[in-house]
Amino acid sequence: MKLLRVGEPGREVPAVLSDDDRILDLSALTPDIDGAFLAGDGLERVRAALAAGELPELAGAAEKRIGPAVARPGKVVCIGLNYRDHAEETGAQIPPRPVVFMKASYTVVGPFDTVLIPRGSTKTDWEVELAVVIGREARYLASPDEALAHVAGYAVSNDVSEREFQLEQSHQWDLGKSCETFNPLGPYLVTADEVGDPGALGLRLSVNGKLRQDGSTASMIFDVPYLVWYLSQYMRLEPGDVINTGTPAGVALGQADKPYLRAGDVVELEIDGLGTARQEFAAA
Amino acid sequence: MKLLRVGEPGREVPAVLSDDDRILDLSALTPDIDGAFLAGDGLERVRAALAAGELPELAGAAEKRIGPAVARPGKVVCIGLNYRDHAEETGAQIPPRPVVFMKASYTVVGPFDTVLIPRGSTKTDWEVELAVVIGREARYLASPDEALAHVAGYAVSNDVSEREFQLEQSHQWDLGKSCETFNPLGPYLVTADEVGDPGALGLRLSVNGKLRQDGSTASMIFDVPYLVWYLSQYMRLEPGDVINTGTPAGVALGQADKPYLRAGDVVELEIDGLGTARQEFAAA
Repeated sequence: MKLLRVGEPGREVPAVLSDDDRILDLSALTPDIDGAFLAGDGLERVRAALAAGELPELAGAAEKRIGPAVARPGKVVCIGLNYRDHAEETGAQIPPRPVVFMKASYTVVGPFDTVLIPRGSTKTDWEVELAVVIGREARYLASPDEALAHVAGYAVSNDVSEREFQLEQSHQWDLGKSCETFNPLGPYLVTADEVGDPGALGLRLSVNGKLRQDGSTASMIFDVPYLVWYLSQYMRLEPGDVINTGTPAGVALGQADKPYLRAGDVVELEIDGLGTARQEFAAA
Repeated sequence: MKLLRVGEPGREVPAVLSDDDRILDLSALTPDIDGAFLAGDGLERVRAALAAGELPELAGAAEKRIGPAVARPGKVVCIGLNYRDHAEETGAQIPPRPVVFMKASYTVVGPFDTVLIPRGSTKTDWEVELAVVIGREARYLASPDEALAHVAGYAVSNDVSEREFQLEQSHQWDLGKSCETFNPLGPYLVTADEVGDPGALGLRLSVNGKLRQDGSTASMIFDVPYLVWYLSQYMRLEPGDVINTGTPAGVALGQADKPYLRAGDVVELEIDGLGTARQEFAAA
């Protein structure tokens, strides 16, 4: 299933895409696509209502904003340097363990929202990533084999990054990762059953129509089951939490001419089976 | 005013301490001490109700748990190495700019709650810190002079840290900062007017009765107004957000014998005018 949230910021209505691409209203089943919904039997109830043909169409949905694929997460955990080619392009060593950092969850915005280039920024960069959305609490999982049972689904994520803030103004990366609007997420939360293997998805990003990233989650150094298991040894993952699993090669930082984003630039992202997103960048 | 939250986790009742130390019920004024309450005229309404003698006592409050001083924050921003003596004890250089990192906000627990030592941890450490609670959105403030108008108040914080996770298993500190229960906060949110100058507060921490940290916020490298202004250049601070402003010397990492915390250890914290907190540590 493809779940989505339709409407203005803070007033999004939960919805699901039908097999024939109509947007159906879920408000009778849940107030939102959030941790409480995912932790309960929310997905099963949507599945049953879809099968029964009980869900009404969401009027005017096609003309409305699509919000973030999930309500503001409790936390957004990010994995750095998780594709060999991206580690190499940034001059970093292949990490022996996952590199873990946090992104403030207020950064999560809709997949077509405007992204703000911070004042004083000259090095705002893109990162297409597979986002994992947690469905069941994960705490000290015994092995990676248990991990996928705790995943509700996946979404397209742009882990927008300001490289001067991240790398030059601080040895802790978070400063360049938590600027407002820095995490477009969506359009859909695609449920895990529909995605199948999260380790075989092509992911692409273009800037102003030029293809910049073209990778596959098959090239992750640490795969999704390993990451969920690993993180669960250090923190309690809660329903609705988001994990950004790293980006393949092709970011601006990795190019000879460092083509960082400027106001007016348009970034388009796509992951196989998860849909497309498009953000225009503007001055904060 | 000293605001507090009384009751079991997730069911805390908002309250305020009277001049004669009675705990008065605020539920008629607000459902919680959270961002929405602080952003509105909540503090003014409490002040008026207190003055009018309108608030009832909270029955049985003295026997109940005290929860975190504010509801789960949107973000917890931390400043590292912000006291010269602590930077020196850890072998780090005095930072030319604030060192900024994030702590997942689900770590926030009550000031007397049990803190869990993560499985596999041998280096769980303490850090008494002055926590700043944001009251009004702060975004690109023009100068530090504007900063304190955006602060609702202050609280005692323990920025619990696992040093092996933070420093040896990852060059990004967040891994050792975001374990469950790693941020006891409170007992009170003390309003800014009552605290006066946040740069003149003694702060102390003892472990099993032995004084380990004994500093003053006067020794901060970057003071509270500067920190709020600085962070506002990089992120939008929202009402209810928490800033942990760094710790003075005396953490376990800085001692010759590295006396890291073990199950059964008791940590007591105190900041002038902000009250005392006490946590027993236990195995996760």
